[in-house]
Amino acid sequence: MKHYLLAIAAALATLGSAAAQPAFAQSAQRAEPVDLDMVSRIRQEAFHHSQVMQTLAELTEDVGPRLTNSPNMDKANAWAKAKLSGWGLVNVHDDAFADFGRGWEFSKAKVELLAPRALPLFALPKAWTPGTDGPVEGEAIAIEFKSKADIEKHKGKLRGKIVFLDPEREYKPGTEPDFQRHDEATLEGLQEFSVPADRDDERAERIKKYMERRELAEQVRKFLVEEGVLASFSISDRDNGIVRSTGGGSRKAGEPVGVPELGMIAEHYNQVMRALDDGQTVRLRVDVDSRFTTDDDRDGYNTIAEIPGTGSKAKEVVMLGAHMDSWHTGTGAADNGAGVAVMMEAVRILKKIGAKPHRTIRIALWSGEEQGLIGSGDYVARTFASYPEPTDPEQKALPSFLREDRGPLQRKPAYDKFSAYFNLDNGSGKIRGVYAQENLAAMPIFEAWMKPFADVGATVVVSRNTGSTDHISFDRVGLPGFQFVQDRLDYGTNVHHTNLDTYDHTSAQDLKQAAAIVASVVYHAAMREQKMPRKVLAED
Amino acid sequence: MKHYLLAIAAALATLGSAAAQPAFAQSAQRAEPVDLDMVSRIRQEAFHHSQVMQTLAELTEDVGPRLTNSPNMDKANAWAKAKLSGWGLVNVHDDAFADFGRGWEFSKAKVELLAPRALPLFALPKAWTPGTDGPVEGEAIAIEFKSKADIEKHKGKLRGKIVFLDPEREYKPGTEPDFQRHDEATLEGLQEFSVPADRDDERAERIKKYMERRELAEQVRKFLVEEGVLASFSISDRDNGIVRSTGGGSRKAGEPVGVPELGMIAEHYNQVMRALDDGQTVRLRVDVDSRFTTDDDRDGYNTIAEIPGTGSKAKEVVMLGAHMDSWHTGTGAADNGAGVAVMMEAVRILKKIGAKPHRTIRIALWSGEEQGLIGSGDYVARTFASYPEPTDPEQKALPSFLREDRGPLQRKPAYDKFSAYFNLDNGSGKIRGVYAQENLAAMPIFEAWMKPFADVGATVVVSRNTGSTDHISFDRVGLPGFQFVQDRLDYGTNVHHTNLDTYDHTSAQDLKQAAAIVASVVYHAAMREQKMPRKVLAED
Repeated sequence: MKHYLLAIAAALATLGSAAAQPAFAQSAQRAEPVDLDMVSRIRQEAFHHSQVMQTLAELTEDVGPRLTNSPNMDKANAWAKAKLSGWGLVNVHDDAFADFGRGWEFSKAKVELLAPRALPLFALPKAWTPGTDGPVEGEAIAIEFKSKADIEKHKGKLRGKIVFLDPEREYKPGTEPDFQRHDEATLEGLQEFSVPADRDDERAERIKKYMERRELAEQVRKFLVEEGVLASFSISDRDNGIVRSTGGGSRKAGEPVGVPELGMIAEHYNQVMRALDDGQTVRLRVDVDSRFTTDDDRDGYNTIAEIPGTGSKAKEVVMLGAHMDSWHTGTGAADNGAGVAVMMEAVRILKKIGAKPHRTIRIALWSGEEQGLIGSGDYVARTFASYPEPTDPEQKALPSFLREDRGPLQRKPAYDKFSAYFNLDNGSGKIRGVYAQENLAAMPIFEAWMKPFADVGATVVVSRNTGSTDHISFDRVGLPGFQFVQDRLDYGTNVHHTNLDTYDHTSAQDLKQAAAIVASVVYHAAMREQKMPRKVLAED
Repeated sequence: MKHYLLAIAAALATLGSAAAQPAFAQSAQRAEPVDLDMVSRIRQEAFHHSQVMQTLAELTEDVGPRLTNSPNMDKANAWAKAKLSGWGLVNVHDDAFADFGRGWEFSKAKVELLAPRALPLFALPKAWTPGTDGPVEGEAIAIEFKSKADIEKHKGKLRGKIVFLDPEREYKPGTEPDFQRHDEATLEGLQEFSVPADRDDERAERIKKYMERRELAEQVRKFLVEEGVLASFSISDRDNGIVRSTGGGSRKAGEPVGVPELGMIAEHYNQVMRALDDGQTVRLRVDVDSRFTTDDDRDGYNTIAEIPGTGSKAKEVVMLGAHMDSWHTGTGAADNGAGVAVMMEAVRILKKIGAKPHRTIRIALWSGEEQGLIGSGDYVARTFASYPEPTDPEQKALPSFLREDRGPLQRKPAYDKFSAYFNLDNGSGKIRGVYAQENLAAMPIFEAWMKPFADVGATVVVSRNTGSTDHISFDRVGLPGFQFVQDRLDYGTNVHHTNLDTYDHTSAQDLKQAAAIVASVVYHAAMREQKMPRKVLAED
C-alpha cells in the first residue's frame, strides 16, 4: 500500500511555479503540467456564475424521472440537445442503441387497506409491470415462492387474490448518521488495494443461482397471471417509510410481465404480514395507472455533443459522461441528474471561458444505465471496440452483463484515437479524488490535476477499482475510463433508487465543486501532449 | 450540581443486605427498603413471560390509531377494559371528562400532481378538518398568511384554488444518527439543574403572540371557506419523506373547521413551490375521505382500573398511567401505545405474581393528552384538587393550558390519600432513571428503587423537571407526579407525531425492561410506610 496523499504532496511541491513552465511540455522526468490560469478561469465560472442547479432543476422537475425509453426519457434527450446546442456545442445528436425494449410510465398508485381496518398504504409500482385498469379489491395472501413446489402448492387457489411475496422484516435502527462525508480516515481507507482472490468457483455458483432465480421469477410471473391474481407486493428494502422499488415484469416485448407489482414501505408491509400471521382477513384496494408506451421493443437513445478539437490532435477524443436515465419513483436527482448536470455544466464552463482544446471533447448522456450500462456499452462496442459474440453455448445463454469478456477484442479505428472517459454517478456529493482503476501510470497525472482543487477537498488518487457505472463500458475493452471519488451524503442510506431521490436531497455547493474539477480534468486531458496511458488488456 | 450517580453508589452500598432488613421499616436514618424477593418475581414475569408486545400489537394494529373521541378511541377504551378485567383488576370503568369536542376519523387521502406533470404526492390530512367529498381538482397558489392584510389582498380571487400555506424549506441533512441511546455523558448531563430565569415578560409576550396567531388562523380558516378554496397544504416539519401532520380545523362544534387541510412531505411540497415560483401552472387532484363522527361535542373517556389495597392503607392510592389517545397518521405505537402497553403490563405482572399491595394501585389510560393533557387534567380536578376558575378577564380569555395557576387550591378529601403518580410517555426506549421534578425528598427513595435495575440500565435519579405529559396534571396541584427518563431511540427524530409512529419502530426488549421497573416502583410505592413526600406548593 502506497500513501498517495504523501506522494501528491511530494510530487507537487515541485509544481509550485507551473505557470512559468512551458504548458503541456512532455517529459518523463518532469511533473505533469497544469495550466493554472485556465484552472482559475474555470473556478471563477464554476463557483461564481454556476448554472448547475438550474440545469438540475430543469432535468428533474420540468422533465421529471426518466426511465429508459419512457416518454420522459425522450423529453430529456430533446431538452439536453437544446441546452447543449444553445451553449454552442456541435454534433449534437441522439445516439441510438438497438432494441432496448419497451417504454413504460406510471401516473397513479393508490393502495388502501380495507380490512381489518381502513388505512392508506404507501407503495409504488415496479417499472415494466402492468397497471390495474382501475381500482381492484381483493384478499391478501402471503406466499414466499422459494421453488417450483411453491407454485404447485398454490395452483388453482389464487383467483382474485393479492399476493405478498416477501416475509416480514424486522426494523433495524440505523446507528450511523444518514448523511456522511469522507474524513481523513475514510479517505485513507480508500488508498488500500485488495489483491483479488481467485473467485472462479464463486462466480460460477453466483451465476448459477442468478439464472435459477431468474427462471423461477419468470415462472412466478406467468403463474400469477394464469391464476388471475390482482396484484403482488414486495417489501421495500429501506426502513423509515422509504420506498425502494425499481424494475419488475419485463421490458422485452413478448416476455411475461406478470401482474401489477408494487414495492411497499416496511412499516405498512409488516402490518399486513402480522395481520395475516394472526389469521385475520386482510383486504386491499389497489389502483395503479401505469402503461407500456410501445407495443414493440424500440431503440434507446444516448445524447451526444462535442466541443471540437483544434490542430493536429483534433481527431483524438476525450469523453465525459453520466447516465441520464433514472428509476421512476423519485425524480432521478442524485442518480443521476447530479452527474448529468455536472457534466453539462463542465462543457458549458469550457465553452463560456472560450477554451480551445486540442483534442475533441465529447459529452455523452447515457440511457439504459440502470438496466446494465446498456447505452454506454452499446456505444463503446459500435464506436471503439467489442468482444466477439460467444460461441460457447453456456456463455451464449447468459445475459450479456454476466458473460466473461473473451477475446480477441475487435478494435475499430477510433480505438487508437481515444484518450480517456470521465464519469460521475455516485450522487451529488463533491469530488474528493479519483479511482485510477489499477492504471498506475494515470495516477501521477491525476495527482497533478487534482492539486489545484485540494483547497475544495479533492485530495486523493486511489489505485482501486470502482464499478457499477458507465466508465466500466470503456474499462472492459481496455480504454481508460474513470469515476470520481465522491462524498456520500445520504446517497447510500436514503436516496439511491428510492422515492427520496429528489432535488431537495442534492447539494448545490458540492455540484459546483464537481463541475469545476471535471471541467479542468477534461480540459487538461484534451491538452495533454500524450493521450492517457492505458492498462495492459488481458485478452484470451 | 450534585452527582447523584455517586450518591446512589454511596447510599446503596449500605443496602447490600436489604433482604435481611425488616421490609418497609421507616427510619430517617435508614436507607429506603427494597423487597428484593418481589423484585425477582417481577423481573421473572416481565422478562421471561412478557405480554407487553402482544398488548401493544392489539392496541396499535387491531385497534389502530386513536384520536381523542374518534371511534377507534372508543374501541381502545373497550379493549382496555376487557384486558384489565381479564387480568383480574377491579373497578374497571370509563371515566368521562366533559365536553371535549367532536370525534373525527379519516380513511383515504389521495393527492396527485396533474400539471406540470403527473406525480402521486404524499400528504395526510390534519385532524378535525373536513374531507373533499370526492375527488376535486384545482390550481395551486402559494399564500403565506402573515397578517390580516394578506387576507384582504386575496379576497375574491381564490375560488376553486388549492392553497399552499408555507414557504419552501431547505433540506437540512441530519448529521447525527436517527437512533440514539443515552450514554454516560448524556445521562450525566441530565443531572444538571438549570436554576430558572425570571421569564414573566417573555411569558406575556409568548402568550400575546400565541393568541394573535390563533386569531389569525381562525380568520384564515373562515376566509378559505368563504372564498371556495378546495383544499390547503402545509409542509411536514420532518425531512426524508416523513409526514408530520397533527391537528387543524377545530374539534369544537360551531367553530370554523376550514377547508380540507393536509401536511405534505417536504420533498413534494418543495417541488410544488419551485414550480409556482417558476411561474408554472400547477394543478392537483385531492381526494380526502375524512369525517366528523359526531355533530355535537361529546365527553372524552379515560379508562381506569384498580388493584385494591389491603389493610389500613387500602384507601390510599398509588397511580400509574399513560395516554391512550394518539394522532392519526401512524398507529400511535411509540406515542403512546408503548406507555399504555408498559403500564398495562405492569399491573398484569403484579396480578400474575399475586402481589397484595397495602395501598390501592390505580391505572389510568388517559385520553385528550395530545390536545393539552385534558383527560388527566380533568380527572385530577374532579378527583383531587383544582384551582378556581379565573375572575381576571385577561386570564379568563386564555385557553386553560395558558392560564397561570392561581390559588387558593381547592382540595378534595382524596388529596390527602394520594401517594404518587407514575407516567411513561417518551417513546418505547427503556427506562434509564426518573425525573424527580425538584422533589428532593423523593430522590433517595427512587435511588433505592432503581438500584435493582442498574444491571438493565436504570441508573439515574435527576432533580430536573420534565413536562409535556400527564404527570404535569398532578404536579401542578402539588401531588407527586413523575415521568421516567427513557432512551430516545428514533422517537424525536423520525417517529414523534409522524406517519412512522408504528409498531415496527418500537423495541420489545426496552418495553419488557420498562414494565419490570414500573411494576416494581409502583409496588414499592404501594407498600411504603409513608406516602411519597410532597414538594411545597407555592400558592397565591
